[in-house]
Amino acid sequence: MKRNYPLSKVYGLLEPGPVVLITTAHKGKINVMTLSWLTMMEFEPPLVGMVLSEANFSFAALRASRECVINIPTADMAEAVVACGNTTGRALDKFAEFDLTTRPARQVSPPLINECYANLECRVSDVHMVRRYNFFVLEVLKAWIDPARKQPRTLHHLGKGRFVVDGETIVLPSKMR
Amino acid sequence: MKRNYPLSKVYGLLEPGPVVLITTAHKGKINVMTLSWLTMMEFEPPLVGMVLSEANFSFAALRASRECVINIPTADMAEAVVACGNTTGRALDKFAEFDLTTRPARQVSPPLINECYANLECRVSDVHMVRRYNFFVLEVLKAWIDPARKQPRTLHHLGKGRFVVDGETIVLPSKMR
Repeated sequence: MKRNYPLSKVYGLLEPGPVVLITTAHKGKINVMTLSWLTMMEFEPPLVGMVLSEANFSFAALRASRECVINIPTADMAEAVVACGNTTGRALDKFAEFDLTTRPARQVSPPLINECYANLECRVSDVHMVRRYNFFVLEVLKAWIDPARKQPRTLHHLGKGRFVVDGETIVLPSKMR
Repeated sequence: MKRNYPLSKVYGLLEPGPVVLITTAHKGKINVMTLSWLTMMEFEPPLVGMVLSEANFSFAALRASRECVINIPTADMAEAVVACGNTTGRALDKFAEFDLTTRPARQVSPPLINECYANLECRVSDVHMVRRYNFFVLEVLKAWIDPARKQPRTLHHLGKGRFVVDGETIVLPSKMR
């Protein structure tokens, strides 16, 4: 079960640089791909900048539908994460193939992936940098999190199938948001 | 001692989302700040997109000089990382205050921080998104790495002084770069 998550806290999910799974929906077909090139751009409403290469099948869906969901997987999903990054949805139902189950999002057409500990429903808010950099600015409209997972261990891609998994958490006195 | 690092491998340093220290130089004054909002945008030459808020003293230096160094610290530097994020260089020499030593960069004016395990000399290559988002596109001109540090444990900010430290590394067969 997931619960609503405050938009003001979304930055804390994305600025640590986790590998994410992007779901899209277009012309009656849903798809999912793996992505690591994204950054927070504004706290609230949360804006996310994301590079999604035109070489990917998901690119046309995102550009046309202007919606996606950023799903944040944990380390136990590493094999599915790599599999989603090494295949194309052109001729494959990745959800069925890699045992990913979905549920409808609230505000966008692409689905939430149940197995991911957090899901961010996004609408494309700026396409000025798409032609030059494949860079989309997204606004997070709604965020979901699994409250039962207190210390989700996310994956960070180091290149060529190497990932570092979240280790210990440290807390220092800080004025930073 | 650091050695030259291939530009083609720079993405593997940044896409895992480490907290970084940004050094700038402007009007004879060097400064350093902490930052987590950046993403890879292209493999080679490496392009990096970075949000550096105009509220920071470093903003004017970056915009005017169009140069910076992205220094990647490790977990043992956590206190200095937080301190650099909680202070302003307007009236403080953060390098002296927080025991950070520097050496000259090769291609840009801002210095490299010796204590960081990797340093990326950058030139601002696109300012079209600065006015709207404080978003700079940087080209990495030269990269340095400490070859003695095989598994650097970087920091990932979770918000409000909480950081997750790199844990174990896993390797899966992958076609992804």
